[in-house]
Amino acid sequence: MEDLKEALTHRGERMAFLGGGNPASIPEAEEIFAQTYEAIGRDKSHLRSILGDYSGPIGNEDLRSLAAEALALELNFPLTKEHIAFFNGSQNAFYFLLNAFSGTMPDGTFRRIGLPIVPEYIGYADQTNEAGVFAAFLPNVEQDGPNRFRYTLNAKQEYPDDLGVLVISRPTNPSGNVLSLREIKDLHSLCVKRKIPFLIDLAYGNPFPNLIGKEEPIHFSPGMVLSLSFSKIGLPGLRFGIVVADPPVIELLSSFAATGNLSAGNIGPAFARIFWKERTLEYLSNHILRPYYDTKLQMALEILEGVFQTEKIDYLIHKPLGGFFVWLYFPSISITNQELYELCKEESVTIVSGHYFFPGLVEHFSHREKCIRLTYCRSEEEIAYGSKILAQLVAKHS
Amino acid sequence: MEDLKEALTHRGERMAFLGGGNPASIPEAEEIFAQTYEAIGRDKSHLRSILGDYSGPIGNEDLRSLAAEALALELNFPLTKEHIAFFNGSQNAFYFLLNAFSGTMPDGTFRRIGLPIVPEYIGYADQTNEAGVFAAFLPNVEQDGPNRFRYTLNAKQEYPDDLGVLVISRPTNPSGNVLSLREIKDLHSLCVKRKIPFLIDLAYGNPFPNLIGKEEPIHFSPGMVLSLSFSKIGLPGLRFGIVVADPPVIELLSSFAATGNLSAGNIGPAFARIFWKERTLEYLSNHILRPYYDTKLQMALEILEGVFQTEKIDYLIHKPLGGFFVWLYFPSISITNQELYELCKEESVTIVSGHYFFPGLVEHFSHREKCIRLTYCRSEEEIAYGSKILAQLVAKHS
Repeated sequence: MEDLKEALTHRGERMAFLGGGNPASIPEAEEIFAQTYEAIGRDKSHLRSILGDYSGPIGNEDLRSLAAEALALELNFPLTKEHIAFFNGSQNAFYFLLNAFSGTMPDGTFRRIGLPIVPEYIGYADQTNEAGVFAAFLPNVEQDGPNRFRYTLNAKQEYPDDLGVLVISRPTNPSGNVLSLREIKDLHSLCVKRKIPFLIDLAYGNPFPNLIGKEEPIHFSPGMVLSLSFSKIGLPGLRFGIVVADPPVIELLSSFAATGNLSAGNIGPAFARIFWKERTLEYLSNHILRPYYDTKLQMALEILEGVFQTEKIDYLIHKPLGGFFVWLYFPSISITNQELYELCKEESVTIVSGHYFFPGLVEHFSHREKCIRLTYCRSEEEIAYGSKILAQLVAKHS
Repeated sequence: MEDLKEALTHRGERMAFLGGGNPASIPEAEEIFAQTYEAIGRDKSHLRSILGDYSGPIGNEDLRSLAAEALALELNFPLTKEHIAFFNGSQNAFYFLLNAFSGTMPDGTFRRIGLPIVPEYIGYADQTNEAGVFAAFLPNVEQDGPNRFRYTLNAKQEYPDDLGVLVISRPTNPSGNVLSLREIKDLHSLCVKRKIPFLIDLAYGNPFPNLIGKEEPIHFSPGMVLSLSFSKIGLPGLRFGIVVADPPVIELLSSFAATGNLSAGNIGPAFARIFWKERTLEYLSNHILRPYYDTKLQMALEILEGVFQTEKIDYLIHKPLGGFFVWLYFPSISITNQELYELCKEESVTIVSGHYFFPGLVEHFSHREKCIRLTYCRSEEEIAYGSKILAQLVAKHS
């Protein structure tokens, strides 16, 4: 209800911002964050050092040790500080990682980034310094009850020899998919066999914000590179990301960070220090964030399906297993998702066209032209207005 | 005096950390920073947004406008938000800039980074993705009174055609040089003529922390790319850097930032907002930082020269015009600066060997093997101990 006022434009028209990736404003979580900010300020001598001393390129050793200790339990592996690197946001870590493991290698070979399932996160697409580095693989599309489908890993997929790294997000942005541990295990085995790293983006995943529904959490195993973030727990303004990986990968990241960032900054780690000492994240994730997002998602689904059925349009929703988004497929639509985006925009409804999320895909796949992504982290009024406009436009162009 | 305790090792031995680049701990400045932190926390609704909302890739427009307004006066140019980009530290901005303007260009040509005077900042050396990108040019070395010298721009230098950008720091890290406005003008004219950008790193320069001694401040002119930082005013833990450049350069940086960082973060800009609204930086720089560092520098010089003369060693000090460092040349030393570093380290005295600061230099230049950098931002006791060990080692190996 809080962002209702945003649903009214300056011109008095209605609007719906269903395109963004900002976490929702949740007063209970915000109260914890404000108290943590205040607690940091109370310890004057510590504050002096937080503001006035450079951290190491990937953070200070004491806090990396504390991170290792806290995450060892949740990721079920005897982690040490040598497994941990802090970054100014996980996107910054991915930038270095994707460039390190793709493109022209020191031995002259060219390596590509494998995306075992597309759609996959839009932010990877432009991060590489060299072109032609993505190799995308089509998922199986499985019907999952009325108006529901799910992408699953194509177990028969043969992967080319030139892959330098595999990357997935779990939950998947944009589809809200949460790959099963069986699927993760198959991909991990492939990576271990090929001696290439397996990057798993846990921005919406476990252990925080833990928006993984009923699926099992990921545990760390050698060969994995896990990327965690404070953004989706509600702190994107801090720019704090954590990479958990084998020590040689962390050393490589440290070299990149020393030249690219000089220092990792202290404010994010200062929040983390308090969170880990007081076990805040577990409570926050499981008792505040999950219930909030679950409720919000159910509300959004009810509104969307109500409107879609009223307008009698063909639609399929990816089974919403985790994350902030609803991923919609309109089988009978006669315009592209980019055209649908433009038409929505004219009515002050912002959506994200799905075509962005298939970098490196060469095969034809109708989902590339017929899917869109909506955030459900908005007010009921906005979602109602946005859904109605969307449904009417899809009905008109089907 | 505060860091005296650091001058004692855990083994009860004396130590001197004269190698780092951390700003000094200045209680008056720290009090301002602590009050600013607190003020940010008092405005709960604003704090909510600072912590919980993504900023744009190079910052939010309102704060970029405020930056433009504040800096327009000091940099003497009608700046707008289109001239301003925020980064997680200026090193991060330089990483993108140096890679954008050097190496293999879209048209296939190879461009190098010109360093019109070496020694120059060590942090640039490893930032590029391609090798062989630095072209370093020797300065004139001018005697400047007893035991003093100064690097000046070689006005007769002919620059090769393959330069993609010129870079200087002012004050220069490591030498403490502050290039004259005449020298800046000559370099700027060259860049304008060649249509290549002129990067000026103002980390220690004007308008903040303004450690430029009696030299004139830099003003912005089209073709320049100025890099400012909050680190050397005493806030390296915030990671806040500002680039001031022509709008097309800012647009380019924005694309890099969108993929490499996603968002610029809000904590640094929140400090900046208060500083600009209350004109804190001018007072801080000119009434707290400059007097503090001036006093500290004079203290360090007296100690160093006293010890050097007692030990009867040959030495020359670069005229200390600005910044945090003393740059020393030992004409008669018989070991390399790297060997001197190793010997100092055995006595728990940390210095920085000067050989790092000459990336891309092909000519022989005795300063590369015979210079070292010391920070003077340490306690009197540490500087006294470090100077004595240093002087004794230089005497022994001359």
